[in-house]
Amino acid sequence: MSEVDALVERMREGNRRALSRILTLIENDTPDGRRALAALYPRSGRAHTVGLTGSAGSGKSTLVGALARELRRRGKTLGIVAIDPTSPFSQGALLGDRIRMQDLTSDPQVFLRSMATRGNLGGLAPATAGLVTALDAFGKDVVLVETVGAGQDEVEVAAMADTTVVVLTPGSGDDVQAMKAGIMEIADVLVVNKRDLPNADLLARQLQSIVDAAPGERRTPIVRTSSALGEGIDELADALEAHRDYVSQPAVRERHREAQARHQVLALARQMLLARVVADHSGDGKLEELVARVARREIDPHSAADALIAG
Amino acid sequence: MSEVDALVERMREGNRRALSRILTLIENDTPDGRRALAALYPRSGRAHTVGLTGSAGSGKSTLVGALARELRRRGKTLGIVAIDPTSPFSQGALLGDRIRMQDLTSDPQVFLRSMATRGNLGGLAPATAGLVTALDAFGKDVVLVETVGAGQDEVEVAAMADTTVVVLTPGSGDDVQAMKAGIMEIADVLVVNKRDLPNADLLARQLQSIVDAAPGERRTPIVRTSSALGEGIDELADALEAHRDYVSQPAVRERHREAQARHQVLALARQMLLARVVADHSGDGKLEELVARVARREIDPHSAADALIAG
Repeated sequence: MSEVDALVERMREGNRRALSRILTLIENDTPDGRRALAALYPRSGRAHTVGLTGSAGSGKSTLVGALARELRRRGKTLGIVAIDPTSPFSQGALLGDRIRMQDLTSDPQVFLRSMATRGNLGGLAPATAGLVTALDAFGKDVVLVETVGAGQDEVEVAAMADTTVVVLTPGSGDDVQAMKAGIMEIADVLVVNKRDLPNADLLARQLQSIVDAAPGERRTPIVRTSSALGEGIDELADALEAHRDYVSQPAVRERHREAQARHQVLALARQMLLARVVADHSGDGKLEELVARVARREIDPHSAADALIAG
Repeated sequence: MSEVDALVERMREGNRRALSRILTLIENDTPDGRRALAALYPRSGRAHTVGLTGSAGSGKSTLVGALARELRRRGKTLGIVAIDPTSPFSQGALLGDRIRMQDLTSDPQVFLRSMATRGNLGGLAPATAGLVTALDAFGKDVVLVETVGAGQDEVEVAAMADTTVVVLTPGSGDDVQAMKAGIMEIADVLVVNKRDLPNADLLARQLQSIVDAAPGERRTPIVRTSSALGEGIDELADALEAHRDYVSQPAVRERHREAQARHQVLALARQMLLARVVADHSGDGKLEELVARVARREIDPHSAADALIAG
C-alpha cells in the first residue's frame, strides 16, 4: 500500500492528522493529492455543503461562527473552509477574533481549514472543491465555506456548494440594484446581517422586491440576523435545512449535482490544459518567444495564444 | 474593407461611437472583437494603465472620481473602466452617485465604460485587458481600471496594469496582517483613504512596517487621502506619475511588459483551450457522459477532466 493510500485509510478511521495532511496534498495539487481525491470522491456527496459570501465588513465571519455553534447544538458535525483572508478562521486574523472562535477551534467535532487566496492562476475553485470533498468523505455532516465577495471566486464557490448564502449589511456600500442579477444568480438564502442598523428594513424590502420579481419555482428566503447579538441564527439554520430538503428532491438533486459536476470538470480541464501547454513548450522556447513578441507589440495576445495552443 | 476594419478606422479618427461599438465587440469576445484587437494592439502601449482596487465601502469610487478630476487638471485625457458593480461609474449605481460624477461623464476627454462582472467562466481579465488596449489605442493618456477586492480578479487586473493602487480604510474590517502577503504582491501604491477617521494613523503605521520589511529595490509609497474632502489627491497623482517614471526605465519596463504579456497570453490560452475541448465534444456526448458519471460519484472530477482532454 502506498503512503497516500495509508493516509486515506487512517483518515477514514477518523484520524484528524491524516485528514490534515491530505488537505495539504490537495491544496498543493500534488499527484498524491489527486490520488487521495480519486479515492475519496466516491465516498463524498453525503455532507450538506454551504457557501457563505459577502463583502469584508458584512459581519460574515461572526455569522459563520454563530451558525457553526447553532449547528453544533443541533448535533451536526462540521467542516469549515475559510478562503477569506480577513476571516478569524484564517491564521492571519486578529488574535481577539481567534480567541472568540476558540470554542469552535477546540471542538473535536469541528474541523477548520483556511486557504491561501493569492496568486493562483487557476483560480481557487478547484482546490476549494477538493478540500470540501475530503471533509465530506471524512464524514462531516455540514461543510461551511466562507469566501469573500464579489467576483469570479464567489461565482465558482456558489457553483460548487449545495446551498449558497449571500450576506448583506445595511449601508455597507453594496448597491442592491447593481448586484441584482448577480445575487439572484447565486443566492439560495439571503441574509440581512446587522439587522439592528437603521437601514436594515429598507435593505430587506429592496431584496424582497428583487426576490418577488425573479422567475423560478422557489422563492429565495430572506433572513434577518444580528451575528454579534446572536439573533436570527436559529432561523438561518432552519432556512439552510429547508434548502437542503429542497435540493434533496430526486429531480432537483440530479440537476444540481450535474451542474456542480459540469462546473468542476470544466474548471479542472481548463487548468490541466494550460499546464500541459506550458509543459509542452517549456523546453522549446516557443512560449518565451511569443511572450517577447507580444511585449514588443509585434503581435496581439490572442494571436499569440492561438499560436501557442496550435502545438 | 470589412465592417470592423471601417470601425477601427473611424475609431482611430477619434469617433467615440465607433470606440463604443468596438468595446462591445471586445467585451462579448466576438470574432470581430478579436479582429479589432489584433489591429489595435500594435498601436497600444502608450497609455499609463492604472488599476485601483479595494473593498466595497473603502471610498474607492469617490477616490477614482477625485483622481480623474486631478488628472484632467493636469491636462491628461482619460479612459475609465469600472468592473466593480457598486461603482457609480457602472450603470447600476445609485442616481445620486452618478450625478456627482456628471462633470466627468460629460467631459469629451473622458471615456467611461462599465463591465458586467458575473457568470463568466473565463474570468474578467481577458475582456478587461481588451478594453484597456482599445482605450489606449484610442489615444487616452491614462486608463483607470476600478475593480473590487479581493480575490482572483484583483490579482489578474494587477497583472495587467502598469501601476496598481490598493485602497484601504481604517476600521473597514480589512485585516492588514492577514492581507500582508497579498498587498505587497500587487500594490505599487498604497492609499489610506478616509484619513480623517480615528484609526487612520494606526493603519498607516501598520502598512509602513509591512513596506519596510518587504524585499526589493523600491519602497511602496503610502498616500493618505480623503476622497470625500478632496485631500491628498494631488499626492496620489504625484505617486502615480513617479511610479510611471519608475516603470519607464528600460530594464524595468521590459521586465514589466513581458510579465504582462505572459499573463495575458496564458489566460487567453486557457480560455481558448477549454472552448475548443467543449466544442470538440459538443456532438459526441462525451462531456455529458463524463459529467453524469461524476455526478453519480462513479469517477472523480480530475479523472473526468483527464479523460475529456485526452481527446
